[in-house]
Amino acid sequence: MKIYRARYGGVCFGVKRAIEMSLTAAGKWKQVYSLGPLIHNRLAVEELKKKGIITTNTLNDIKNKKVIIRSHGIHPRLLHRLKKQEYEIIDATCPWVRKAQRYVEQLISEGYHVIIVGEKDHPEVKGLLGYGGPHSEIYSERMKIKHKKIGIVPQTTINYEALNQAVLHFIDRVLELKIYNTICKATILRTHEAVRIAKKADVMIIIGGKNSANTTRLFQVCNKYKPSHHIESADEIKVEWFRQAQSVGVTAGASTPKEQVDEVVTFLKKKFRRKKSIP
Amino acid sequence: MKIYRARYGGVCFGVKRAIEMSLTAAGKWKQVYSLGPLIHNRLAVEELKKKGIITTNTLNDIKNKKVIIRSHGIHPRLLHRLKKQEYEIIDATCPWVRKAQRYVEQLISEGYHVIIVGEKDHPEVKGLLGYGGPHSEIYSERMKIKHKKIGIVPQTTINYEALNQAVLHFIDRVLELKIYNTICKATILRTHEAVRIAKKADVMIIIGGKNSANTTRLFQVCNKYKPSHHIESADEIKVEWFRQAQSVGVTAGASTPKEQVDEVVTFLKKKFRRKKSIP
Repeated sequence: MKIYRARYGGVCFGVKRAIEMSLTAAGKWKQVYSLGPLIHNRLAVEELKKKGIITTNTLNDIKNKKVIIRSHGIHPRLLHRLKKQEYEIIDATCPWVRKAQRYVEQLISEGYHVIIVGEKDHPEVKGLLGYGGPHSEIYSERMKIKHKKIGIVPQTTINYEALNQAVLHFIDRVLELKIYNTICKATILRTHEAVRIAKKADVMIIIGGKNSANTTRLFQVCNKYKPSHHIESADEIKVEWFRQAQSVGVTAGASTPKEQVDEVVTFLKKKFRRKKSIP
Repeated sequence: MKIYRARYGGVCFGVKRAIEMSLTAAGKWKQVYSLGPLIHNRLAVEELKKKGIITTNTLNDIKNKKVIIRSHGIHPRLLHRLKKQEYEIIDATCPWVRKAQRYVEQLISEGYHVIIVGEKDHPEVKGLLGYGGPHSEIYSERMKIKHKKIGIVPQTTINYEALNQAVLHFIDRVLELKIYNTICKATILRTHEAVRIAKKADVMIIIGGKNSANTTRLFQVCNKYKPSHHIESADEIKVEWFRQAQSVGVTAGASTPKEQVDEVVTFLKKKFRRKKSIP
């Protein structure tokens, strides 16, 4: 069976950078605390813990005052609190997310009502809304807006489909619409490549944490073209997925380590070494 | 036969205002000269001529230095020339077009590359491009843009379809997109109502000069729903259009005087007084 492995699937620049910064810090201080998982991937988080990077959801757990801000960024109020309480901060906010936060602030200062297009409970979105304050809200299809000046900032990892929909929602309802396109290159490359592969492969495997939003979206996009399966590791793969399949495409979300993709590809190669297709 | 007459078809606010301003000026100076037809309608232009409003394309024709700027507005270079040569100017630029011109200037001053969405040879568009200067151009599907900051200003009388298409063209190609929605209310109401009527009527009649761009667009929109006919006056109406029709919708472009719509409706009423439908 032919395997198409995505080049742009897997851990993105921002997550990779956050892990490297955290490992350096853990080397220096033995233990560092990440506010929420550094990477939306259970297995990877366990590995990091062994190296001194501990995931927590509350400041009370942090014994040595060494805290990591992960790639998603945080609410400015929390950042302010950390500074005031003299935490040692490893700010691993993805530079593209930092830019998006600045654009939100700028739009507010220019008098726009800011709409964030993204997932309601995503930490990046919560941070962006924090920078927008009372003059910002998350996009929903049913929203009614009475503002004449609307600014739009998308979550860095959403698809253009979602951004386009939001823009068309407002275009005939407002006088002025200013959009900062903060969708990151990694997201675009990953999505485009996944579609390209899904068009030619018979089956798609998308690897990533079940709690990873961008992996779920990648799965949804691929599933429009071919039967697709969202897995966390190779042991979830079922032989019946490949009945009559001649080829399989493999890609991964922004928070899936290379080793997990390797593992899946190795498994598929072994399993289907001799068979051209499964009867 | 049932006749649905549009409420929002016919001469728009800007054109009506320009005619009134010109009539007042003609009353004062006997003759005034309009740079291009005040209204894209042959019959109406002939009527205006009798009242002292003369259409011309060249300043040389203007004997008494009394000049009308029609609702479409003009290129700022020409306006400058008129002022310098001490013409008496009746500036009947539609207030909504004037606003669009100001938005173009503002976008340029903020460092945007400005895209005008509209018809290449339309006088309003030519004027808007004049205010944009070298940092502006008209939208075309095949354009390649290397600017990071794009400003979009639509011609006041285009459909949202055209604006939406242009916006989606740029959204994934630029960092920053600022849109002033200068499509005027009259255009929106006229289009929406025409669609509503075209959905229920069996045949559509759209009245307006063959050289009127907005009438042509109105025809195209209606023609998507029902067989439609773009006419200038009642004598173009053919009986065969109404075979098996139970109802007809009548609307008109932004440059069609009320009298011409009256004439068509009266004609239809007379013609089909007794017949429920034409066999």
